[in-house]
Amino acid sequence: MTVHEAFIENAKLDNLVITRLMPGDDLFESLKKIAKDNTIERGIIVSAIGSLKDVVFVNVRPQTGIPVKAEDMIEIEEAGPFELLSLEGNFFPSQEDGEPVVHLHAILGTSSGTVTGGHLLKATVFTTAEIILGTLAGSSVYKAKSDVTQRMELLKG
Amino acid sequence: MTVHEAFIENAKLDNLVITRLMPGDDLFESLKKIAKDNTIERGIIVSAIGSLKDVVFVNVRPQTGIPVKAEDMIEIEEAGPFELLSLEGNFFPSQEDGEPVVHLHAILGTSSGTVTGGHLLKATVFTTAEIILGTLAGSSVYKAKSDVTQRMELLKG
Amino acid sequence: MTVHEAFIENAKLDNLVITRLMPGDDLFESLKKIAKDNTIERGIIVSAIGSLKDVVFVNVRPQTGIPVKAEDMIEIEEAGPFELLSLEGNFFPSQEDGEPVVHLHAILGTSSGTVTGGHLLKATVFTTAEIILGTLAGSSVYKAKSDVTQRMELLKG
Repeated sequence: MTVHEAFIENAKLDNLVITRLMPGDDLFESLKKIAKDNTIERGIIVSAIGSLKDVVFVNVRPQTGIPVKAEDMIEIEEAGPFELLSLEGNFFPSQEDGEPVVHLHAILGTSSGTVTGGHLLKATVFTTAEIILGTLAGSSVYKAKSDVTQRMELLKG
Repeated sequence: MTVHEAFIENAKLDNLVITRLMPGDDLFESLKKIAKDNTIERGIIVSAIGSLKDVVFVNVRPQTGIPVKAEDMIEIEEAGPFELLSLEGNFFPSQEDGEPVVHLHAILGTSSGTVTGGHLLKATVFTTAEIILGTLAGSSVYKAKSDVTQRMELLKG
Repeated sequence: MTVHEAFIENAKLDNLVITRLMPGDDLFESLKKIAKDNTIERGIIVSAIGSLKDVVFVNVRPQTGIPVKAEDMIEIEEAGPFELLSLEGNFFPSQEDGEPVVHLHAILGTSSGTVTGGHLLKATVFTTAEIILGTLAGSSVYKAKSDVTQRMELLKG
């Protein structure tokens, strides 16, 4: 069994990868392709600004405890388009197969001025996405499925 | 005609510029002045926290397609003040005249606990703005007007 | 009297500290402990993603002017849990005793898809918090109490 526990690891910010995604691009596929084409094993979103459409995201129901069950998560699908106000997250390799696990949270502006968002499952670029990825040097952190959260969680390799 | 297309560029994070803006400072003018006084051509917001007032921002109307038209954007003006919960964005030189084009999205906390925000057009510092800019080395990215989005978009020089 | 004024300081991003906090961890105490155990004097949140519960945050009442008074701030306490959509902020040493002053703004996703948040006073990790701190080299910035804002504000040492 994989044991998940708190850790601290020192690393360095290596390269920045500046990219502009185009209308219709799939956000997750684009980031995975950049990671694989450029042999980037571990990275973080350092900066992101643009607009998204056709988004699917989840949030957690009030009073949910751990372990989190599938029915505790509420999925929301919205056509948008939306201003992409914030995109936070990272990608680390899966412990199982080394594939990049992309973990993203998005915050989206609506025409009424209210803001929506959550743990992002799917999104398409509307007009643009100006994303600056930071690549990590000196890290041996992986992702593996946690029984507690039902998600791929970070652990020190 | 300027052709906008997807690109990937490798760059390095050079200096950080730590600044504290004061009550009444114009956010956009302050950032442009820092860029020009310190000869920073290209930069990103690495971290920002503080409070804003007299903000103007835009969001996009539902069902808007591309090309985006002026009437697809809804402008919202709010006196605030607001906690500045997130400020994302960057500045790159205009291809036309080299002037810094500042592209910012802001997320603002209100007294009811709800959150508002969008593509920022104007803002004044309320109590403080603790901003850490990152300057980019090795980048040749510019901004030029796009017919598709009606905004200044990134392109590789 | 401590004079607070605008400043610009050049610094470098030194190390990154990658951490995963565990369910039940106190967010502020965890960050302070990491700072002290690793002798990190000055740092910023470079990336953060996860979920929080039992949060307390404040926002400012409309039409508030400066000096800000205690009654201008509205405190909100929410059990959650919430997706942590954005965590912005920094820690700098107090001018008085050198202890890290942690200044955080959080944005939280709710099950209805709306978003809440503000200037964070207290939070507990729900399932995880994947946080990447950046340590600052070459900075002499401190925090000291400001009569104008009633908060600990940045000033150049």
